[in-house]
Amino acid sequence: MRDVAVIGVGIIPFGRRDEDSLLDMLAYSSLKALDDAGLGEKGVDALYVANMGAGILQHQTAIASALADRLSLLPCSADTVENGPASGASAIKNGVLAIASGYYDTVLVAGGEKMREVVGWKATDFVATLTHPQVEYPYGITLPGMAGMLARLYMEKYGLTEEQLIAVSLKNQRMGSLNPYSHVEMMITKEGIHDHRDAIVNNPMAADPLHLYDMCPVSDGAAAVMLCALEKASQFTSNVPVVVAGFGQATDTHTLQERDDPTELKAVTLAAQQAFARAGLTPQDVDVAELHDAFTILEIVESERVGFFKTGEGGKAAERGETALGGKIPINMSGGLKARGHPVGATGVAQVVDIVFQLRHALPEGRQVKNAKVGFTLNFGGFGNNIVSFVLRRAE
Amino acid sequence: MRDVAVIGVGIIPFGRRDEDSLLDMLAYSSLKALDDAGLGEKGVDALYVANMGAGILQHQTAIASALADRLSLLPCSADTVENGPASGASAIKNGVLAIASGYYDTVLVAGGEKMREVVGWKATDFVATLTHPQVEYPYGITLPGMAGMLARLYMEKYGLTEEQLIAVSLKNQRMGSLNPYSHVEMMITKEGIHDHRDAIVNNPMAADPLHLYDMCPVSDGAAAVMLCALEKASQFTSNVPVVVAGFGQATDTHTLQERDDPTELKAVTLAAQQAFARAGLTPQDVDVAELHDAFTILEIVESERVGFFKTGEGGKAAERGETALGGKIPINMSGGLKARGHPVGATGVAQVVDIVFQLRHALPEGRQVKNAKVGFTLNFGGFGNNIVSFVLRRAE
Repeated sequence: MRDVAVIGVGIIPFGRRDEDSLLDMLAYSSLKALDDAGLGEKGVDALYVANMGAGILQHQTAIASALADRLSLLPCSADTVENGPASGASAIKNGVLAIASGYYDTVLVAGGEKMREVVGWKATDFVATLTHPQVEYPYGITLPGMAGMLARLYMEKYGLTEEQLIAVSLKNQRMGSLNPYSHVEMMITKEGIHDHRDAIVNNPMAADPLHLYDMCPVSDGAAAVMLCALEKASQFTSNVPVVVAGFGQATDTHTLQERDDPTELKAVTLAAQQAFARAGLTPQDVDVAELHDAFTILEIVESERVGFFKTGEGGKAAERGETALGGKIPINMSGGLKARGHPVGATGVAQVVDIVFQLRHALPEGRQVKNAKVGFTLNFGGFGNNIVSFVLRRAE
Repeated sequence: MRDVAVIGVGIIPFGRRDEDSLLDMLAYSSLKALDDAGLGEKGVDALYVANMGAGILQHQTAIASALADRLSLLPCSADTVENGPASGASAIKNGVLAIASGYYDTVLVAGGEKMREVVGWKATDFVATLTHPQVEYPYGITLPGMAGMLARLYMEKYGLTEEQLIAVSLKNQRMGSLNPYSHVEMMITKEGIHDHRDAIVNNPMAADPLHLYDMCPVSDGAAAVMLCALEKASQFTSNVPVVVAGFGQATDTHTLQERDDPTELKAVTLAAQQAFARAGLTPQDVDVAELHDAFTILEIVESERVGFFKTGEGGKAAERGETALGGKIPINMSGGLKARGHPVGATGVAQVVDIVFQLRHALPEGRQVKNAKVGFTLNFGGFGNNIVSFVLRRAE
């Protein structure tokens, strides 16, 4: 088992990118990662592409083969990996395994999704293709609906308040406004949100008790990371390598109804535990984290399940500012899915990109967690039925 | 790099399976592989699902998560791997890497496709989603069209004859009629084919010079293999383990027009060379092979490129019976894609299943290659732009 490091990262601004095809976006982010890593085209042994829905959204398959050619990486091996909204982290995990096996030295992982080609309910319907085809999808349940139910259960069970959800929304929106790659650039204030909520039109109820501003936008975007055997990293780059210290992946029941307690999100706990165990580190060692806040409630629940806070304490911690810059454990300093955006195949890769920025100490004041050495990511597939997590460490 | 072995296989009859969902088929074949390997549900560390088009064909994503739950493999890790018609072999390759890395001991790989839900041109259109979205797909080129052009070039360049194509078709159809998992069960004879061709109606021209019987059918189906670290195989099963002695994967230009010589299929040569080099074996060591005969012409060209015959000699060798049972190198004793069928996500897995049957000496007379010790598979992605190959060896 060789150690694996991230030696290059690339990301393009998320948002509405009508002028770019899915392959364009994957290529742009990949070229940035290759350039950042100091690798030429001929330095890539294998390519993994993370994508959830090009078949549905673009009527296109085999995009890994297409990208390998587009980037002139031939004859490198190339596969597409799909795990719903956790496709990005799954692809990185497979890249890590490819290098750890000793068969490959350098692996490019690019994740992307072009979701703005469909509008309105069709985007929600697209994501709902991950629900159970017999007992969920036909009855019209959507991911926002599931998140609304989770939030309501949390309110009943742990006293979660709307103010706590708003605290997450404000933090992430503020951080996103400082991130040049973020989809949502506008600042909102607590007063602004209240105004909007009062007006309903601007922040309408989406899935009770979640409002529009509790949800991530529908985005186009792509991100890429260049992985390399740690022992060979110095051959390519003078960047500080960021070591993939540990990874975890765990599955849970497909449907919510089969879970003893839908608020538990067991797979989140398990994936995080695996990643920390492999890294030989604990949640207390983490300096900065990117969690999967497709909905504000998810950031709160995940922050508890991965071990940053006790169960039921995540919302209060967010309201007290403990997850903000300068707090106990800064979460989603990128703006998270909530503000950076959530082009599903790109998200897990973008999370690692943002943690690498942090661990390189490459971000401007206002976003950089001072002297960050250990980072954590959690990418949420299905509605918590397939979770992939990483512990990343700045090489000393 | 630990050695990896196949310790269990499962396959269900390919064909038209209106009563089964994609997940049903994946589950059936997986349960057979688990049973064959002697593994219970809790013995699986990781699951890979090979599938090309559930998004397009079933409006469904994240099927690896769904299958993990369906099989009660929770909380095992689970990813879907897609590489067009070579998705099956790509998924197995990733399973091999996962075990070789040392992180996982046991990996289930299930490949499946449910293609009969669409009919006629829509099935051809579905497969064509792997062509180039700007310079191929919009102009209506299909995979049969590409295969027809390849056959015509081979006729002009190497004197390939229709009789040689017919020899492949007859052999594979005959072998398929003996395979209980085969889609096409009917026998055809040379006279029959000639009659049909004369009558046109029954074997019409499909893509000049290829007729209907030069092409694989559109099939539903699934297959699964259980992979295990070779050192741990005896913990689970008394089956003779089949070692994944070598694998190879290579990409080529997305479009045919960019290739110096479209008859070369460089990626086929490269993938096979990699697999043989890793295995420390040569094409002359192979006792039985499964090649990707989605079109008869492909079996002929591949049999040359992987090194069984000299360039331009594959058609003559097929006509002389050198690729039949008892010949120099028996190819597609399963019936191949031509007769077993080609549910695209399943094919690369089914190829390995059939070679494992051969190397276990488990087939009846008439299909079993006597004393077979080394097998070879080649799974063809795109139109030759992403090839995955395995050399398999019976453990002594």
